[in-house]
Amino acid sequence: MIPHVFDQAIALTPTANGVYTGATSPAYANMVGPFGGVSAATLLNAVLKHPALLGEPVALTANFCAALADGPFLVTAQPARTNRSTQHWVMDIAQAGADGRPETVMTATAVTAARRETWGVDDEPMPAVPAPDAVAPPAQAALVEWIKRYHFRFIAGRIPAVWDGGGDDSLTQLWMRDAEPRALDFCSLTALADVFFPRAWLRRATRVPVGTVSMTVYFHAGAAPLASCGTGWVLGQARAQAFRNGFFDQTAQIWSETGHLLATTHQVVYYKG
Amino acid sequence: MIPHVFDQAIALTPTANGVYTGATSPAYANMVGPFGGVSAATLLNAVLKHPALLGEPVALTANFCAALADGPFLVTAQPARTNRSTQHWVMDIAQAGADGRPETVMTATAVTAARRETWGVDDEPMPAVPAPDAVAPPAQAALVEWIKRYHFRFIAGRIPAVWDGGGDDSLTQLWMRDAEPRALDFCSLTALADVFFPRAWLRRATRVPVGTVSMTVYFHAGAAPLASCGTGWVLGQARAQAFRNGFFDQTAQIWSETGHLLATTHQVVYYKG
Repeated sequence: MIPHVFDQAIALTPTANGVYTGATSPAYANMVGPFGGVSAATLLNAVLKHPALLGEPVALTANFCAALADGPFLVTAQPARTNRSTQHWVMDIAQAGADGRPETVMTATAVTAARRETWGVDDEPMPAVPAPDAVAPPAQAALVEWIKRYHFRFIAGRIPAVWDGGGDDSLTQLWMRDAEPRALDFCSLTALADVFFPRAWLRRATRVPVGTVSMTVYFHAGAAPLASCGTGWVLGQARAQAFRNGFFDQTAQIWSETGHLLATTHQVVYYKG
Repeated sequence: MIPHVFDQAIALTPTANGVYTGATSPAYANMVGPFGGVSAATLLNAVLKHPALLGEPVALTANFCAALADGPFLVTAQPARTNRSTQHWVMDIAQAGADGRPETVMTATAVTAARRETWGVDDEPMPAVPAPDAVAPPAQAALVEWIKRYHFRFIAGRIPAVWDGGGDDSLTQLWMRDAEPRALDFCSLTALADVFFPRAWLRRATRVPVGTVSMTVYFHAGAAPLASCGTGWVLGQARAQAFRNGFFDQTAQIWSETGHLLATTHQVVYYKG
């Protein structure tokens, strides 16, 4: 059986304890280098495949130091501290630079933990939105290859049809899922946390060069509730809070189709002003 | 001149390139170990004091691996990648464990960058709140030492007076500043990002054991606009989005008294259910 295209993209081959080789996937090509969500998911995958892993992901921060070049890369994931029920991870991705020596292209940290049954509540209810089937697919063709790997149903804040500098808010709401069906898990949820097109493009209907410099994902559901989402739609909502001096932030939420908050996520993005 | 108590708390002595010694400050003692905001600020200070520093902080993620013990610690800050206008940092704090060997107690990453003049806008306006002088100081005595280092003026979501399990939302708004006047900078702003008492206490008026496991700060103002805030008040707003399986998140904003968004910040916190 051929693995799902996403599993191919995040695939890692262990070469030593916590050291893996991987390669960029043309199926997830972005404007420059691969879609960042897949690179972040690859870093998380290195943690999930580590023999010393304790528990499940709770937090992930991935920093984009430089554009990944198309081709092979080296991933390292090491536990920095293992407690009774939590574990702290330090990861990175390196590639050979112009002179052949390894250069850091991503750094990352993660927290994994044993989830327990506790009192709980969602304090950010899913917004009232039409069902996925009631929303038309985007009329616009995919601008880059990785977009074709997803199905999107925009409810609010679609990519501007006219670049006239006229935006007035930065909110996007959309249903989303893998185009080729694949059951939801921590890695695909990580990638989904990075699918939102740049808030700077929406806020003033102007296409400027952009690049995420750091993203964080907090996971609010364990492996079993994620798996129970199956291949269904999830709802994503994203908006910016500030654009200033060449950097804007994005705060976002992802809910299951049944309205459970699965992840909250944030990123800070470079933009050319 | 005796340095400000906060500068004493985050003080570092370089011992090698990117390696520093520091020590916990009794003035910022928390329930167990020091106030986490000061530890995060200490990690940022190690970057700011590094001779290879490029630009100013844009993003900081600090992971709390274990409670810092009262006493000395070792801080390491190394640039993982230096680009033309951005730089990526990896930091950690280590302390001698029970057997005398160094153990990681915090890990962290940061992004620094040269800020440029660009188009910009705040998309999260400061909420309409009464002026600091119109709000009474808290009636409750400080529960822990570090609280005394700050002045707080709660507008909404104060610490419950009665622990009756009766909370119904997780929003706090408060004016805040150093008790002993000190001009705002990146380090004090980092500490302020962690002053909010646990959302789990507010949401259901129940005091349960808690501990931040990871926090991220995005800085939306450069050194000059921060300095121009002087020793004045800043407005903090925090709320949770999800409480589940022993972890809740917090999303927060900090505005200058004049209404500029200075930082957005997020954290994920362990709670005993």
